[in-house]
Amino acid sequence: MRILGLDPGTATTGYGIIDAIDGRLQVVTYGVILTSARDSAPQRLQTIYQELNQLIATYQPNSAAIEEVFFGRNITTAISVGQARGVLILALANAGIPIAEYSPPRIKDAVTGYGKANKAQVQLMVRNLLDLEETPRPDDAADGLAIAITHYQYQRFESLYD
Amino acid sequence: MRILGLDPGTATTGYGIIDAIDGRLQVVTYGVILTSARDSAPQRLQTIYQELNQLIATYQPNSAAIEEVFFGRNITTAISVGQARGVLILALANAGIPIAEYSPPRIKDAVTGYGKANKAQVQLMVRNLLDLEETPRPDDAADGLAIAITHYQYQRFESLYD
Repeated sequence: MRILGLDPGTATTGYGIIDAIDGRLQVVTYGVILTSARDSAPQRLQTIYQELNQLIATYQPNSAAIEEVFFGRNITTAISVGQARGVLILALANAGIPIAEYSPPRIKDAVTGYGKANKAQVQLMVRNLLDLEETPRPDDAADGLAIAITHYQYQRFESLYD
Repeated sequence: MRILGLDPGTATTGYGIIDAIDGRLQVVTYGVILTSARDSAPQRLQTIYQELNQLIATYQPNSAAIEEVFFGRNITTAISVGQARGVLILALANAGIPIAEYSPPRIKDAVTGYGKANKAQVQLMVRNLLDLEETPRPDDAADGLAIAITHYQYQRFESLYD
């Protein structure tokens, strides 16, 4: 199973792709889709859409998970993140990839066992779980990997009761 | 000049297309893009994207205007409307159509001369300005036409000072 995790944003969308082979997790790639504040909102959405399409074509994930928007943010940010989420979800849907959603506390809990873990704790666990020599950078890429790990945990959990 | 006005939403996206010929406004078409609550969010975004692509291919507007999201709405609604806006803006950007944004009070003011006009007043003025025999239905389609009219008003105003 190859899982794509996405942490959506207008300026920076973090992504992480992992393979789960016989219960062992392995990093395929991770990084960020960046857009420039000098570009218009439509141009930025086009960049996000095109770059995700390219990632999908290159790495062909079987399933994807996306972070739910954190409810403490304000309306303007929510609209902007919503727009980025819209084009990410569209690209995944067009490729026939099923999409799960997880809230930040669920992601923290799945990765560290503690729903209120801080960023450093999440990053350390991502590094340990994926057996990486260095902590993945930037933060949004590490978050993308954390979301992919979360999806693996929930998928695995469900399959125990099938 | 052919203008497409859009009132975005997950369940219902209103649209209106008008032609401005020698300062005279004429309706080309109006209606709503509907999605079913039984469909998943990704399916609904695909429907919105595909139907707008079809409208663009059929009617080939030169410019588009979209309603800014009303700030009184809650975060969940904002995310959902943001996602719909994201795929609408993407479809317009892919077709090379410039996009303007107007807030609800600006739309009401442009159409009726009063920023706090109610729905019935907006609809009556849309009907008068476009010389329609009946009030356009449903409400979201009338809103799409009101947004297109607003864009025409602002475009015209700007051209006086060019």
